[in-house]
Amino acid sequence: MRQTIITQTLTKKAFAPFGDVIEKPGSEERLLNNGKCVRHHNLAKIEMDGPGAQPSINIFCGQPYAMPLTLTMVERHPLGSQAFIPMHDRPFLVIVCEDDNGTPQTPVAFVTEPGQGINLRKGQWHGIFTPLGEQGDFVVVDRIGEGNNLEEFFFDKPYVVALPNI
Amino acid sequence: MRQTIITQTLTKKAFAPFGDVIEKPGSEERLLNNGKCVRHHNLAKIEMDGPGAQPSINIFCGQPYAMPLTLTMVERHPLGSQAFIPMHDRPFLVIVCEDDNGTPQTPVAFVTEPGQGINLRKGQWHGIFTPLGEQGDFVVVDRIGEGNNLEEFFFDKPYVVALPNI
Repeated sequence: MRQTIITQTLTKKAFAPFGDVIEKPGSEERLLNNGKCVRHHNLAKIEMDGPGAQPSINIFCGQPYAMPLTLTMVERHPLGSQAFIPMHDRPFLVIVCEDDNGTPQTPVAFVTEPGQGINLRKGQWHGIFTPLGEQGDFVVVDRIGEGNNLEEFFFDKPYVVALPNI
Repeated sequence: MRQTIITQTLTKKAFAPFGDVIEKPGSEERLLNNGKCVRHHNLAKIEMDGPGAQPSINIFCGQPYAMPLTLTMVERHPLGSQAFIPMHDRPFLVIVCEDDNGTPQTPVAFVTEPGQGINLRKGQWHGIFTPLGEQGDFVVVDRIGEGNNLEEFFFDKPYVVALPNI
């Protein structure tokens, strides 16, 4: 029998073990340009290791996935953090796992709300990029450079990730 | 008499002297996740100098400006690049100036199209952050750290920046 993971609402507190929620509420606010602009300051910790490491800005254009989702694998990037911020108001699915000596543990799943992005910590196990609803563009800030920055882990038995029955 | 600057359409070619246009067309495309995601790779050159320099991810929430716009000053960040990517489909105004021995020259103005962001090169003279139409949130990737990273220049006579008469 498949194990079912029910998604949670994404909050800074719930996501703290895995990385940053990139959102305006609760941020350090700096007023610029005679008050016409608020800078929500330094919302994510960008991490970069290894030879030739530098930060990059990318656009990910992703096809949507249907829920419930069958989760067969997770991946991680041992050399750097990776941030995803939507260029629109639609939700995406964020799946993460704690690590135990190189083995990802039971997945935890979140669904974002409008105005939320995330930053995965360096080496954080996570599901692949999963827009929901329709195709969407996302700003992705991550590490480029030399070295192998991708590890994959396939579960013995897939999980099912489902929205809560509300 | 005030000098009037007419805005241009933002293209990679026209913007090349000032920085990067962050957009999908013309990018290096990498297929991920069994073809479900396109990574438009490394769209901006992130620059960071000076003590304690590190990249940061911020959200700028800006009030809109009306056109035509009276341009009294420009600014630059001598220690790092600064990227602006809208989290929505609305345009913003991009004003830049070539430099001549520390003095900004005649401004050049662009209006973005949906799906376009920009990255200003380190030390590039530019107008302040200028959303058009309505309030908007933008992802801003720039340099944080020690040292003075802001220079301002006030023009003897303001310019007027206007949309073309189409």
